[in-house]
Amino acid sequence: MKRYRLWVSYDGTTYHGWQLQPGADTIEGRLNDALNSLFPENDINVIGASRTDAGVHALSNVAVFDVDTRMPAEKISYALNQRLPEDIRVWKSEEVDADFHPRHCDVNKTYEYRIHHAAFPNPLKTRYAYYTYLKLDASRMKEAVSALEGEHDFASFCAAGSQAQTTVRTILSADVYEESEDMIVIRLTGTGFLYNMVRIIAGTLLEIGAGKREPGELKNIIEAKSRSAAGQTAPPQGLCLKKIKYL
Amino acid sequence: MKRYRLWVSYDGTTYHGWQLQPGADTIEGRLNDALNSLFPENDINVIGASRTDAGVHALSNVAVFDVDTRMPAEKISYALNQRLPEDIRVWKSEEVDADFHPRHCDVNKTYEYRIHHAAFPNPLKTRYAYYTYLKLDASRMKEAVSALEGEHDFASFCAAGSQAQTTVRTILSADVYEESEDMIVIRLTGTGFLYNMVRIIAGTLLEIGAGKREPGELKNIIEAKSRSAAGQTAPPQGLCLKKIKYL
Repeated sequence: MKRYRLWVSYDGTTYHGWQLQPGADTIEGRLNDALNSLFPENDINVIGASRTDAGVHALSNVAVFDVDTRMPAEKISYALNQRLPEDIRVWKSEEVDADFHPRHCDVNKTYEYRIHHAAFPNPLKTRYAYYTYLKLDASRMKEAVSALEGEHDFASFCAAGSQAQTTVRTILSADVYEESEDMIVIRLTGTGFLYNMVRIIAGTLLEIGAGKREPGELKNIIEAKSRSAAGQTAPPQGLCLKKIKYL
Repeated sequence: MKRYRLWVSYDGTTYHGWQLQPGADTIEGRLNDALNSLFPENDINVIGASRTDAGVHALSNVAVFDVDTRMPAEKISYALNQRLPEDIRVWKSEEVDADFHPRHCDVNKTYEYRIHHAAFPNPLKTRYAYYTYLKLDASRMKEAVSALEGEHDFASFCAAGSQAQTTVRTILSADVYEESEDMIVIRLTGTGFLYNMVRIIAGTLLEIGAGKREPGELKNIIEAKSRSAAGQTAPPQGLCLKKIKYL
C-alpha cells in the first residue's frame, strides 16, 4: 500500500460540506466514490485536511488515501476528474510518506472571506461572496484587522459545539483589501483555525466596516474570550480555503 | 402610459437566453412575469436591447416597457427584485421618453469574453469563463486584436442565419488583457455586433493565442468576408454583456 495526497478545488454551493454524512452529497463522499470506482478492489476512505462547512468553497483542500496500484501518482488526478462532477477538480496527485496525516502536521492555511457591498447585488458576484447593502468603509476594517495577528486565545471567535482542546491559535497575517469598488476581501493565514473562526471574524469586521463597532474594539473582543462579545457568523458562500502549505 | 427603462444583470447559466420562447425559461419571460405580477391590470411585454444567447451573462442589459402607474420610477427596481429569482437583478429603473426604443438608438456596447487557461480547470472560474487546457500566449492575441478596430465588413464573424441587412459594423476599441496568470479577457466596444460575432472573434483569437494561426492573419480573415475563414464559435459561458451606453 502506498499513500497518496490529492489537492482539490471545489465550488461548495450545492454540497453539504466536506465531511461524509449518510444521505447527503458531500465532497468527501464524492472523492470516495470516484476513488472506489477507479480502484474497485480496495475500500477507500479519504482523510481530509479541512472539513469545510456546507456552501464553503476551496481552491486548495487536501485529501489523503492509501491504495495498492501501479498507476503513476500524477495520473490519478486525471482519472479521478473523469469520475467527479465538474465543480470538484483534483489539480494534483502525488505520493507521500506512509505516515503523512493531513491534519497532524505543521501547516499554514490561508482563508479568504469576500464581501460584496453595493446598493444592488451583482448576480455575477453573489455565488462567491456575501452580499450586503450596508455601506462599508474598508479603511476601518483594515485598521482593525491587524489586532488578530499573533498568538491569541480566540475563544470569542469559536462556535459553540467545537471539540477543540484549546482555543489558542496563531494568525500569521491578517489583511483586508479592496478587490474592486464593490468587493472587500479579508485574507487570513494561520497555523490553524477554530470552528467557524473565519466566518465569525468576517461578521465582526463587517460590523466594524458598517460603523456599528469601532476598529479598536477588535482587541477587546479577543480579550473577552467569549463568543457573545463578537459579531454574527457570516454566511458560508463568502468563504474560500485558498491555500494549504505543509511545512 | 409612461415608458420605463430597466437596467438588468443576470447569471445566464440556467436560462435559455434573453428572448421569450414558449416553454423555456428566459430572461425576457422572467421580466414579463415579474412586471405583470407587479402591475396586474396591464399586459406588459418588455423590449430588450440585446438578445443574449442561452448561457450568456450580462452585467448590464436594458429592457423597456410601458405602464400606467403612480409608483415612483426608481421604486420599480426594488419591487421587481422581490419578484425575480436571485440570479436576475434590476439595478436601476427610470422613466424615459415615450418614443425611446432600446435597439433603435445610437449606442456603444461593451462585451467581454473570458478564457480560463490552465492545466486543470478551477471550478471557481469555469462558470464565468471558457476553460481550455491549451497553453495560450496572450501577447499574440494582443498583437492581433487591434486589427478589429474601425469600420469593417465583419461577415467572417457572423453566424449563419443572421437577419442583419448589412454585416458592416464599427468596433471602437478591441483589447486583450490578462486578469490573472490563468485568465485572459477580450474586451470589445462597438456601436453594434452581429449574431455570435464576439464568440467567433473569441474563438479565432484563441487559435491565435494557441499558436494555430499567426497574429497577422486576423486582417486577412476580416478581408475574406467568409464565415469559413474565421475560427470556431467560442462557447457561451465566457461571454458577458458588460455595458450599454446610449449616446
